[in-house]
Formats: sequence, structure tokens, C-alpha cells
Amino acid sequence: MNTDQYYMQLALDLAKSARGKTHPNPLVGAIIVKDGVIAGTGIHRKAGEPHAEVHAFRMAGDYAKGATLYVTLEPCSHYGKTPPCANLVKESGVSRVVVAMQDPNPEVAGRGIELLRNAGIEVEVGVLEQEAKRLNEVFIHNMLKNRPFVISKFAMTLDGKLATHTGHSKWITGEQARHAVHQLRNEVDGILVGVGTVLADNPSLTTRLPEGGGRNPVRVILDSELRTPLDAAVVHTHEAKTIIVTTDTADRTKLEALQAKGVEFIFVAKTESGLDLEAMLAELYKKGITELLVEGGGEVNASFLRAGLIDKYFIYIAPKLLGGRNSLTPFTGLDVDSMDEAWNVTFDKVDTFGEDLRITAYPNQGENR
Amino acid sequence: MNTDQYYMQLALDLAKSARGKTHPNPLVGAIIVKDGVIAGTGIHRKAGEPHAEVHAFRMAGDYAKGATLYVTLEPCSHYGKTPPCANLVKESGVSRVVVAMQDPNPEVAGRGIELLRNAGIEVEVGVLEQEAKRLNEVFIHNMLKNRPFVISKFAMTLDGKLATHTGHSKWITGEQARHAVHQLRNEVDGILVGVGTVLADNPSLTTRLPEGGGRNPVRVILDSELRTPLDAAVVHTHEAKTIIVTTDTADRTKLEALQAKGVEFIFVAKTESGLDLEAMLAELYKKGITELLVEGGGEVNASFLRAGLIDKYFIYIAPKLLGGRNSLTPFTGLDVDSMDEAWNVTFDKVDTFGEDLRITAYPNQGENR
Amino acid sequence: MNTDQYYMQLALDLAKSARGKTHPNPLVGAIIVKDGVIAGTGIHRKAGEPHAEVHAFRMAGDYAKGATLYVTLEPCSHYGKTPPCANLVKESGVSRVVVAMQDPNPEVAGRGIELLRNAGIEVEVGVLEQEAKRLNEVFIHNMLKNRPFVISKFAMTLDGKLATHTGHSKWITGEQARHAVHQLRNEVDGILVGVGTVLADNPSLTTRLPEGGGRNPVRVILDSELRTPLDAAVVHTHEAKTIIVTTDTADRTKLEALQAKGVEFIFVAKTESGLDLEAMLAELYKKGITELLVEGGGEVNASFLRAGLIDKYFIYIAPKLLGGRNSLTPFTGLDVDSMDEAWNVTFDKVDTFGEDLRITAYPNQGENR
Amino acid sequence: MNTDQYYMQLALDLAKSARGKTHPNPLVGAIIVKDGVIAGTGIHRKAGEPHAEVHAFRMAGDYAKGATLYVTLEPCSHYGKTPPCANLVKESGVSRVVVAMQDPNPEVAGRGIELLRNAGIEVEVGVLEQEAKRLNEVFIHNMLKNRPFVISKFAMTLDGKLATHTGHSKWITGEQARHAVHQLRNEVDGILVGVGTVLADNPSLTTRLPEGGGRNPVRVILDSELRTPLDAAVVHTHEAKTIIVTTDTADRTKLEALQAKGVEFIFVAKTESGLDLEAMLAELYKKGITELLVEGGGEVNASFLRAGLIDKYFIYIAPKLLGGRNSLTPFTGLDVDSMDEAWNVTFDKVDTFGEDLRITAYPNQGENR
Ligand SMILES: [Zn+2]
Ligand SMILES: [Zn+2]
Ligand SMILES: [Zn+2]
Ligand SMILES: [Zn+2]
Repeated sequence: MNTDQYYMQLALDLAKSARGKTHPNPLVGAIIVKDGVIAGTGIHRKAGEPHAEVHAFRMAGDYAKGATLYVTLEPCSHYGKTPPCANLVKESGVSRVVVAMQDPNPEVAGRGIELLRNAGIEVEVGVLEQEAKRLNEVFIHNMLKNRPFVISKFAMTLDGKLATHTGHSKWITGEQARHAVHQLRNEVDGILVGVGTVLADNPSLTTRLPEGGGRNPVRVILDSELRTPLDAAVVHTHEAKTIIVTTDTADRTKLEALQAKGVEFIFVAKTESGLDLEAMLAELYKKGITELLVEGGGEVNASFLRAGLIDKYFIYIAPKLLGGRNSLTPFTGLDVDSMDEAWNVTFDKVDTFGEDLRITAYPNQGENR
Repeated sequence: MNTDQYYMQLALDLAKSARGKTHPNPLVGAIIVKDGVIAGTGIHRKAGEPHAEVHAFRMAGDYAKGATLYVTLEPCSHYGKTPPCANLVKESGVSRVVVAMQDPNPEVAGRGIELLRNAGIEVEVGVLEQEAKRLNEVFIHNMLKNRPFVISKFAMTLDGKLATHTGHSKWITGEQARHAVHQLRNEVDGILVGVGTVLADNPSLTTRLPEGGGRNPVRVILDSELRTPLDAAVVHTHEAKTIIVTTDTADRTKLEALQAKGVEFIFVAKTESGLDLEAMLAELYKKGITELLVEGGGEVNASFLRAGLIDKYFIYIAPKLLGGRNSLTPFTGLDVDSMDEAWNVTFDKVDTFGEDLRITAYPNQGENR
Repeated sequence: MNTDQYYMQLALDLAKSARGKTHPNPLVGAIIVKDGVIAGTGIHRKAGEPHAEVHAFRMAGDYAKGATLYVTLEPCSHYGKTPPCANLVKESGVSRVVVAMQDPNPEVAGRGIELLRNAGIEVEVGVLEQEAKRLNEVFIHNMLKNRPFVISKFAMTLDGKLATHTGHSKWITGEQARHAVHQLRNEVDGILVGVGTVLADNPSLTTRLPEGGGRNPVRVILDSELRTPLDAAVVHTHEAKTIIVTTDTADRTKLEALQAKGVEFIFVAKTESGLDLEAMLAELYKKGITELLVEGGGEVNASFLRAGLIDKYFIYIAPKLLGGRNSLTPFTGLDVDSMDEAWNVTFDKVDTFGEDLRITAYPNQGENR
Repeated sequence: MNTDQYYMQLALDLAKSARGKTHPNPLVGAIIVKDGVIAGTGIHRKAGEPHAEVHAFRMAGDYAKGATLYVTLEPCSHYGKTPPCANLVKESGVSRVVVAMQDPNPEVAGRGIELLRNAGIEVEVGVLEQEAKRLNEVFIHNMLKNRPFVISKFAMTLDGKLATHTGHSKWITGEQARHAVHQLRNEVDGILVGVGTVLADNPSLTTRLPEGGGRNPVRVILDSELRTPLDAAVVHTHEAKTIIVTTDTADRTKLEALQAKGVEFIFVAKTESGLDLEAMLAELYKKGITELLVEGGGEVNASFLRAGLIDKYFIYIAPKLLGGRNSLTPFTGLDVDSMDEAWNVTFDKVDTFGEDLRITAYPNQGENR
């Protein structure tokens, strides 16, 4: 690890603590180094607040002159809620800027860097680029696709079963894995289930951390027939907002009863394969949901899979074998004839949580059909 | 790693090369150390041949006097095809014996050690005991259960599917994982499939190693109705013996036709849940099969699982998602109502083969129902 | 590494970049964490500038309320150039403070912590304490002893020789080791040699880093007889200040000639074993030298050793054997009769620089005679 | 580590236990692998006893046909105390031979391999060659130089001192380092000191291992004036043979008195720089000494160094600083003027023994002047 990588890693370490809190902005960390001393540090904590560079320059003061700025993302070059950081960098007197990755927005990518170079500042791009891209995978996806980053999460037995034929699934995984799921809920801003899950398990879908605290993501229910009961936990608990996704032919009376209890609605068309998920994601994104955790059953999961809308997988595997012809399976949906029609993913890593495993995987690039 | 562990590890390293070749005997390695020099080394290669100790003492000659013998299993104390090694040890003049584990046969366990101690030899037991027990897991199982050690091996997608609803499964896993399976076939002495697999895929079930060579295990077909075609690959290829497991009500004409082609038979009763697998295993064991690789489909796997007859799992997971309501699943069979009725296993390790993973697991002790 | 250790390590990482720049203040890093987000970061860069906590609270703003402050040293509780940080912490609204180590100044140690606890703030002390103490070994020494932290650095052959009998020593070590020495010079604020070295090698004793830059420590010459030539490199180069340590009986004419060229003087008594080094260190400390690198020959090194004034050793060992009865040796001085009279040290670590080794050692605690 | 390396490492592991016991033969291990099973193992334990291959073929029996032989040294091709192993290999039926290194004897190097190839056997040379050469560094040196492999071993303080000016050195190093020295004595067949050490310390120079046992190397005393007292420990203790190296002008009466006590003599010329060490080594080698541990003081060490006769260094460094103008130094002898005239070595590794370090080094190839 050379000097540039050392400071960039530190900037990434600072940035990542704000994971899940900066929407619609990316995670950014900045470090200003003058004569080997870290003269300024900054992170972007939340939209509307100063960019990471601003904090770093504030702390650095005159140290910025002749210093090197390490920043995990190309400095912004447009006038938004705050003046562009690229201007700030120019005026700061830094002589060198090291950038982990370009702005993922194709319309502005490279403009900040160009602006700095034109000002005579030496700019190096691409230090720890992969790490920076992974750190901002949600933001990049949002930026390019204008929809939430969708994580498919489920827990299954070693033989690929979500539950028994009766729907019984408590508990597939142990305490540590379940705790990890609540950590995950704490980081996303939306959590989606089908109405089937609501009817079967009546979950509250809130975040429970051992230390308390924790942020509740918005609860999203796929419910084309408006079968969500008025006394469902997702309706009567108010720690989190609930959005039901349905069609405009949904029963008005039931709808109004739910609205009266504070439930919001998104109306999408019904397609051959169910509710129009792409339209729904566009709506959720407009409502500020950038990262959606799909805790679906087999039908919901399959709908997302077939629509090519899953961006990451967290699959918990318990050391159990269930068997059975009618046990529930992670992805139901239509059958394909040939193994060649399977969706390809890439295993990212395998972690251990107590007695359980968790496989992290990504859809193969370009195969996200 | 102390001195005793160092030499015991070396003895285990020698022993393990004979994996799958020593039935009905265990894998044993022996090392004689005199004044820090390895004076004798031995391994047991094959039943009927000298025990590991015999080779080691032959090489050691007079060096044995006052030496230490490291042996991975308690020296035998009964007169079998060869005189008992415990006597040999006594007469050799070694002054100390280090044993990894007692004989797993409860009827003789500890007798060899006692004999040595009575002869005034210092005996230490339990050095690298867990490693020794794992090395001889097949032998120990054979000894205690009088039946083959059954390995359930299958390859599935990340969502737990063996094949599409049409039975198409070529290829779930990549070349490296498939190669590992052929290595496994090379080590076991029996391989079992259901007749369904014969009818669907017509496999030859032989071992194909890139370097050639390789040992073909006996092919065992579960076929209660004698549906195995006369021109099936397992019938007309003769690299390996084929045994069909059926009932005594099987069609005589078909049976004789198969016998004429060299097929052997085991007749067992039909129980509610299918052919009596426990009786079959007893017969296979009598025929010298100590380690049986079950490459079943969901029905066969489920029969073994429900009968509590699986002793180890090798589960290959491919980075693919198949989905589908009728895709084939690793264990079908009866449905249970509650997750508590699942069979518990313990994950042993996760290995990587190219893009695929392999999970090794063992049934939980005492829960092998 | 638990959460507290994680953030404290980050605070230490921030702090350490200012190594050698903060005198007479310690190296301090601070991190404020609110709901898992790093809301503020600060480091102390230089005396007279804001303390680390000040920067961190400035960035944190309202985030400080209910947050946790991680700080590598107990917050100050006295009014100095800046108001006490302990007050700032109290007013900030943080609910928990994690401190790596108490203030090493025995007169104020614990007072800042007490003040916070009295204010109802939860305070935890001792997280990564050893790392914090090592980081501030210079500051702690300064504080407790009121003199510079003395590092004895020399390069020798594997048989313990500094140079041939003629004094020839170019080059014992290779380029990487020599580069490391210049890095070291960049971090200390004083470098000391005997006049013998000036006469023999005429070094400029400045810092040469491959990337340019670098800070030149003050050059200190032990020269009781004022033998330093007027045209010596340490006299006529002005990148760094030069201080000659001599006695008040030194030749006035020579002294004034040297003064005319900008050389400063420290006058100390001459004791049996040479110039009074303890008095000299006190004077150097008054002049702002907190960390003194002694690059002595055998006589100078021995004087420091016998006076018990060496606080750390960096000993470079080259893969060479020189031999010879009159080769120069790292510590000459008086002979002792028994090996029991040797000075004991503790090896801290061995690093590799190209083909050379570097041993880092510390005098045994309480044996720094 | 591929298959060939795996088995060769095992063969090296077997071979190395006989270190120091096989003179004038090399350390050799052999493993015969048939169909993946280690069918035969052998090591060469002692000159006059069967070669490693012989043991391996004896155990292997018919398994040798078509097998692979792994052997750490080219099989011998000449008729010695035993018929050539190359013939044995030919007749054994092995189809492949993997050899770690050629015979180091330039007169026969490659002849065994050629013989095998001419017999149609596939031979691969060079698997783990560096490891094999290091394992047999003594043997190779003996073979090429016809003299013992000389190890210079001494313990010094961190400032390169063997003892105080009075010769006091008990104890520089701690118990663990001293134990390691006795282990070393147990492995060599000769140990050399100057008469100065005999007069100063009156050591018995025998091997003391905590577990008892241990082999005493021959004691060699450099004593041109026959100053060894008749009641010296090396004279009156008889656990080991003692050889005094002197000149033919030595006092006859003293000589005969020493002979009467069992001391043997080697007579060499006196050169300008002392006794003719090269002649002495040739004589010692004729007497069966293959590996000589020089535990000299500065004069003896310097004589060996200047004669270019040191083949390996074990330098123990204690965490102590002694200082002193007249402390004893590892290599005295003539002074050189320039650092360029130093003898270059290469650091091999640094080990820790309790609080002490041990540096292992080798003279630079071609620079062993
Ligand atoms: Zn910006
Ligand atoms: Zn036996
Ligand atoms: Zn403060
Ligand atoms: Zn031979």
C-alpha cells in the first residue's frame, strides 16, 4: 500500500460510516495532507449538509496551500445546494488532487477533474477505484438507473427451502444471522414483502438492534388485491411508514380504510407477470427510497428475478435439511426448460454467522435481464 | 506443534495416501524415531498386507530398541491374518509408544494399549486424536455400524435446484467442480443412483480423471420395478461391476436378461417409504463396499435422509438461480409441518472450485435419525 | 477489534501523521460518532493551533448531542492558549467519551476525566492504551523528564563495527536503510554528533528525501575544545540551525567567529566523563528540542549510555563482517569487568531495509541508569 | 504445491531427521507412490546402512511396478558398499523417477539419471531443488571441497561484544539460546576452540540436552604452543575425543603427556597468519569430521574469516550493551582500511530465542575469499 493508497483508504474509512444516510448523495470522504500531516478531514454526512471537501478545507485552513487532497469521488462541478467543490479546491491552493473514481453521472463525469486540471492542479484518478465503486454501489446504481438498489435477502435451509409446506419458518437461522438482518434493515431505506408474508406471518418489519436505536426503513407491501388486513402489524404500528403497491382497480373502501390508518399507496399496472415492478421502483425512488431490501417469498423473489431487478443477494444458509415436495422455495415463478436459462450470479464472499453461512452474490454484469 | 505432534502428523500424512484402499482395515501410518532420527516408517496399504507397524519395524531393525513408535491407531492385539502388532511392539524393544486414537471397535478398544503398558512400555494416547478420527471416519463408521459410510453428493443452483422441471442439469457446475467429483468417485468403492437417473441421463458412472487411471466404484442402482434398460450404459459398459437393488418380486425374465449381461442383484423388502435401504447397505457392506457415494435425485436423497443413513454431505453450489415451481430439488419425499422437524447438520468447511462452492457438512451427532 | 477499538484506531491513525510537529504538545486525534456515523474528526497539528477536539466539535455541530467522542488522550482541563477541551466536551452534549490514555502529566492526570464524569458523562479510559502510549512516547518522556527523548541511531556491521580503524564507513548500509535514516531526521527536531564526526566526515546533517521537502532538525555538536572548523558544512550551510555544546572556558575568539557565522552555543560543565549531557539536554529542551537523534561515534554514544540518557535505539545492521583490532565500535568508554554490568535493553522489533536489518530496542524500564 | 512437490516435501521431511548422522553420505529420503498410495518409504540413516531407495523398494515390493519414485538426490550409479541404486530402480519396474537434485559430485553428476533414462524411465529433475540443496549443504560442501563445513557460531551483545575486557561472558544469552547451541553441538561432528578459550574458561565442550542423550562432537583445540593444561576439562573428560592442532615443533614431552591421556594430534605448518587452517581442515575431514562448529574468540574467528573458510554463521545477539574500549569482539585480526574490504554475507533469517535473537547468514557466493 503506497502513500496515496494509504490516505485514500483512510478517506474511504471515514466515508463509509455514513452508509445509508446520505441519499440522494454519495458517500464521500476527504483528507488533506500537507508535508505528511493530515491537515484536514471531512466526510459527507447527509444531503443538504456540507460536502466532505468543505469540512476538510475548513479544518485545513492555510494548510491547504501546496497540499494534496484525497477525495473518494470526483469533486462536484455544478451549483447545487452548495457551490461546487471544484471551485473550492481551485481556490484552496492545493497543488495535487487524488480522486478514487469519477462521478458516475455520465453527464458530469470528468468535468470536475477537467476544471481542476485546467486550473493547473495535478489530478490523479483511480486510486482504490474498485473499493470506492463498491462503497457507493447504491449511489451509482441510483444515478444510472433512477431507481432503488434492490437487495434480495432470504434465509434458506441447505437444501434451498424457505419454509415448510405450511409456511412455518421460525427459525431457520440462528440469533447471529437474524441480528445481521436487523443491521441490514438499519442501513436500507425501504423493505418490501408480498401481502402473502403479511397474511402468513404478520411481521412488523421494524429494526430491532440489541443496543436499541436503529432506523426503520419504509415498509412496502405488494398487494394487488388489497388483502392487507386493517389490523396487520404493518398497518397499526407507526414506527415506520407503510406503502402498499396495488393497481388503480383496487377496492376503494378498503383503500380508504387503510389510508385512514396512515397507509400510503403506489398504483401501478398489472402485467402478465404481476404488478409492474419497474414502475413501482421508479415511484419508490421518487419517494426517496434508494436501497430496497426485498424480503420476499418465492413469488415476489421470482418476480424481481425475472424482471432483472435484483442488484445484490444476501443469502443466509442454515445447517438444516428440510426436504418435502411442497416446502417453500426461494424463487418460484415460471419454469424454464434448460439449465442455460438460469440467471448467472457471481459469488462475492461467504461469511459465517454463528452456525449459519451467508453468501453474498451479484448478478453477472450485463446479464441482469 | 510439539515433537510428538510433529511425528504423528507425519504418520497421518503417510497413512492418508491409502484412502479408500484399505477396506476393511483402517488407514494407519507408523513412524519409529530413535535419537531424533526417523528409523522406520510404515503405512498399511491394503487388507492382507502387513500392518503399518510391521513395515516400520522391518526398516528400523535394531534401531527400535529404546525408540519411540508413533502410530495413528492403537496397535492390534488379536491374531488375524497377521500376528498382533502389540506383540511385535513388545518384542521390538521400543520404550515408548504414542498413539493417536484407541481402536474404535468397542470390543477390543484399549486392549492393545493395556498389553503394552503391562509390558512396561510408556504409552501416550490422544496425540492429534481428532485428525486421526477424521482420517478414519469411514473405517470407524464401518466398524461401529457394519454398513458403508454414506456420502450424499449433489450439485445445485444457489436456489437449491438440481435440474429444470424437464430434468435438464447439464451443466450446473463448472469443470473444476466436476473434476472434484471424479476424484471422489476414485476414492469410494460404491456409487448409487436411482433408476430414474439411469432412465433420464443414461450415465456410465465411471471415473474419468484428466491424467487417466482412476478406480471405478461398484455401480448400485435402486430399481424396485427393474426398469433398467438392457442397453443402459451401466449394463453394457464393463469397467465397473453393476448391482441392481430390487425386490424378490421383480420380473424374472428381465432379471435373467440383466444377469446374463453380468449385472448382480441385491434383494430387499419394500417398505412404506421404498426399498429397505438399511438392509441394502448391510448387503453392500458384505460385498465389500465401505464407502458409498449417493448421487441421487430428490427421491433417492430423501429416502436416505429420512432413514438417517447419510453420514457426510458434499454439496456443490453453482452461481446460478433457476427458479420455477417444478424445478427438481435435492430432497423431495414427505413434507414436514414445522421447521423443528428439519434434519440438522454442521457445516465443516466451504471450498471453492472455480466459480462454484462446495459445502462439506456432517449430520449432527445423535441426530442422525 | 470491537467498535470502540475500531474508532480509537482511526483516531490514532489520524493523530500519528503529525508525528514530530506538535511540540510541546502531544499527538492527539479525535472522532465523534453519532448513530454510527463519523460526524466529526480532528487532529492536533501544531502547538498554538486548535486541539483535536476543537476541530472535531466544529465539524460535528449539533451531531455532538448524544454522540460518543473518541480521543487518544484525556481532554485537557486547564486554561492554556485555548480554553480547556473538557469544558468544550461538557457543553457539546456528547453522552460518552472514550479515552485511550490519561494525561501523562502527573499533576493534571485524571482531572479532565473527573470533570467529565462529574458532568454526568460516561467516560471509558484505556482503549488501545499501549498504542496511544507508544504514539506519544516522546511527549510523555518530555512531560515527565523535562528533556528531549533521545534516540541512539547507528549503523554497524554484523560484527559490531561502525567503521574501519581509519574511520572509513561509506557505506555500511544500503540505500533503503540510508533513506530510512533521512525519514527519521525528518521526524525529529534535533540531531547530535561529536566534533570528531564533524572533523572526520564533515557532514551537513540535513534531511534529504527522494521526493524533496523534509524538515531539517537543529544540528547539535558536542565540542568541548571548539575544534569545529569555521568552514565545516554544519557551519556554512544554513538550511538548519547549529548549536555547539561547549564549556565556558572555550576559546573566545573561535567562539565569536562561529557566532558570527550564525552558530549558537550551549555552555555546560565538564565532568569526569565529559560534557554534562543532562545539563545540555535541559538546555536543548528549553530551546524546543523534544526529540534528539544521536548519530554519535563510540565516545559520544558511550557518554549517553553511561549517563542513562538513551530512550530508544535504532540499530542498523549490514550484512558485512569487518574484523580488525582497531575498527570503530558503537560504544567505547570505560570498560566494565563483568557481563552483569551491561546495560539491558528489550528488542522491540526487527525490520528489513533492502539487504540490511534494523533492530529497534528500548532500555529496560527502571534500568535506564 | 503440486503433487510432485507434495511427495518430494514428504521425502525431504523424512530425510532431514537424520541430519548430522549420515556422514560421509548425504541425507536422502525416498517415497514410492503407486496409484496415489505411498507404497514405500525410505530414509538413509547412516553410512554402511541401506540407501533410502533400498528401504523404499523393500516396502513397496510389487507395488513398484509402474509407480513413481520420489528421491531427494539422484540415485547412485557406482558400486560402493552397496550395489548402485540406479540399477535397483531400473529393475524395480518404476516408470517415473522424480529427483530433487543431481549428485553434487561433478564426476558422477547426472550419470544415475542418464542410466535411468537410457532404461526408458521418465526422469524429472529439480523438484524442490533449493530445499534439497539446503538440506544437504554440509554434504555438498564436503563433496566439492573435501573439507568440513564450517559454522561460525558466537553470542554477542547488541554492540558486538563477546565478553568484557576481563574475558567475562557468563551469560550473554539466556537459557533458550544456550539450549539451541547444545542442540547444534548435537548435530555437528566437530567443535573447535582456541587454546585461549581452554585457558580462560576451561570448558568441557560437551553436549548437554535437557532430555539427556545427545552426541558429543570431537573437540578440536588450536594450540600452536601446546599450552593446553594436562588437567584441562577437554583432556580429562572422556565423553568425547580431543584433537589438538599444533606444529611439528611442539614440545615433545608435553605432547607425549597429552597423548598418554588420550589426546590426538594434527600437525600443520605455521603461516604468517597462524596455524594453517586449510591443512587442518583437510586432516579433520580425513578423520571423519564433516561439520565443524567454530566457537572461537576473536582471533580464531578472524583466522577462519580471513582464510575464507567460514561456510555459515549463527550469531546470537543478546539485548545488552556492553561498551568499553577493550571488550572482546567477534573478529579481531588485521585491520583493513576501507569498508569495501569487509566480508559480505547474506542474511538468511532472524529467529527469536527467549529474549535473544539469532541471525543466520551465509558468506556471499564467490566472495568466500
Ligand atoms: Zn461537492
Ligand atoms: Zn496390527
Ligand atoms: Zn485540549
Ligand atoms: Zn544409492
